[in-house]
Amino acid sequence: MAASFFSPVRLVGVIGSDCPFDLVEVFAGRGVDLKGLEIRKDSRTFRWAGSYHGAMNERTTDSIELNVLEEEPPAVPGSYKDSKFIFLANTAPALQLQLLEQVNKPKFVAADTMDCWIEGHLNDLKSLLEKIDCLIINEDEVRMLAGQGNLIGAAEKVLDMGPSVVIVKKGESGSITCEAGGGKFVLPGYPSAEVKDPTGAGDSFAGALMGYLAKRNRTDFAALKTAVAYGTVVASFAIADFSLQGLTAINKSDIENRFKTLRKLTSF
Amino acid sequence: MAASFFSPVRLVGVIGSDCPFDLVEVFAGRGVDLKGLEIRKDSRTFRWAGSYHGAMNERTTDSIELNVLEEEPPAVPGSYKDSKFIFLANTAPALQLQLLEQVNKPKFVAADTMDCWIEGHLNDLKSLLEKIDCLIINEDEVRMLAGQGNLIGAAEKVLDMGPSVVIVKKGESGSITCEAGGGKFVLPGYPSAEVKDPTGAGDSFAGALMGYLAKRNRTDFAALKTAVAYGTVVASFAIADFSLQGLTAINKSDIENRFKTLRKLTSF
Repeated sequence: MAASFFSPVRLVGVIGSDCPFDLVEVFAGRGVDLKGLEIRKDSRTFRWAGSYHGAMNERTTDSIELNVLEEEPPAVPGSYKDSKFIFLANTAPALQLQLLEQVNKPKFVAADTMDCWIEGHLNDLKSLLEKIDCLIINEDEVRMLAGQGNLIGAAEKVLDMGPSVVIVKKGESGSITCEAGGGKFVLPGYPSAEVKDPTGAGDSFAGALMGYLAKRNRTDFAALKTAVAYGTVVASFAIADFSLQGLTAINKSDIENRFKTLRKLTSF
Repeated sequence: MAASFFSPVRLVGVIGSDCPFDLVEVFAGRGVDLKGLEIRKDSRTFRWAGSYHGAMNERTTDSIELNVLEEEPPAVPGSYKDSKFIFLANTAPALQLQLLEQVNKPKFVAADTMDCWIEGHLNDLKSLLEKIDCLIINEDEVRMLAGQGNLIGAAEKVLDMGPSVVIVKKGESGSITCEAGGGKFVLPGYPSAEVKDPTGAGDSFAGALMGYLAKRNRTDFAALKTAVAYGTVVASFAIADFSLQGLTAINKSDIENRFKTLRKLTSF
């Protein structure tokens, strides 16, 4: 959804018959190809339940059901194999690798990951890191992966593991982007007076970022910085309401206006 | 020390005979007037001891001794009474008020405070807030003072208590500046790969900020934004070493260079 504001999107994913949304309807008119969406009648959709605390900037996982994510990954449709910008959303790194292998010659591959894969599937994750261009990861998780508390030091350690860009997400405090060539970009979060539901903020950030890069067909550091700023803006809309409502309520000009506001709020 | 990089400084303070530094020597050649420094032979200096955890971004107070801060405040020398830019460092708000009353017609008054005054001396603090232009406060403390978790909402609530500017310090994640007229400025922390001792980061931030405003003799929002950026830069030097060593090791051109770097690191 976040990427579709910028570029045509090809979605690959698998859900069970319990999914409460009709995704064809949800994505109608948004330029999202759903050929890669598989609905498995006898399986259940991945579920996560958590609680947000304090100023909505701390969360705890109450329950997690991998369900379809424990099964075989969906197939990448033949018509997707020439895709140039690939985002591997958070799932088991072995599945991320299997999905990536089905694409011919991607130009820029970004991946997300999380604590349970760092703890339990580190070798798979390390294999993945050698094959991607960009890791997008939470601050606690990059510390865990690098075994180092300082975020700059941790990001640099992860750069040594393979990717040429590491983007550390800091929730309401924004992000730090480090590239292997030494480039750094620090951007605060968009200052939101009201946060209804931070769930999906990270995916909205990554989606918008990738959508912008795909639209520009560029991956240089200047383009990446702009992409991170668009990611920040789209995430700020996502957290203003539950589910996808924060994103379905806006259009491209809302994004452009807030992008300009973010630049003004951070310039000196 | 932080302010002295920008402007002449008049220091008011009181220490006991136990202070391990010769402050005349420490400030020699830095344009710091020490007429307002009182050394009380029979008293002990304020002491704080704490521990830093994780990535040095969490701290706990191990012990606190108010000592001289529980006594009468030092007198403001007659030659200081025409001072235009006043920073009331953290102490009991009743003392901050007594000190402020000794200055004739200040142009811009900023104050720091902390959790123990919010919890135990709220009425004094509220009286102070009505008399100052700017409150510089940690994120946890602004939440406590406002009774609200969202930082923007909390800052706006504190603006209603009197000051025309509230600057929320977020440690390594930078700061959020809100003014009564609606102006906002969000700036990340300077990305430091090595942090030796965060003690005094907040005072270095405030000192540099006030020193810059005094030098420019301006208090408009554009000047405030630049002042916050200088505060961020000077604080980043302060945390790179113990005690004042991070600041005594640098000169004005180190600050100017890092200021330009910070602008580059945050621009898109």
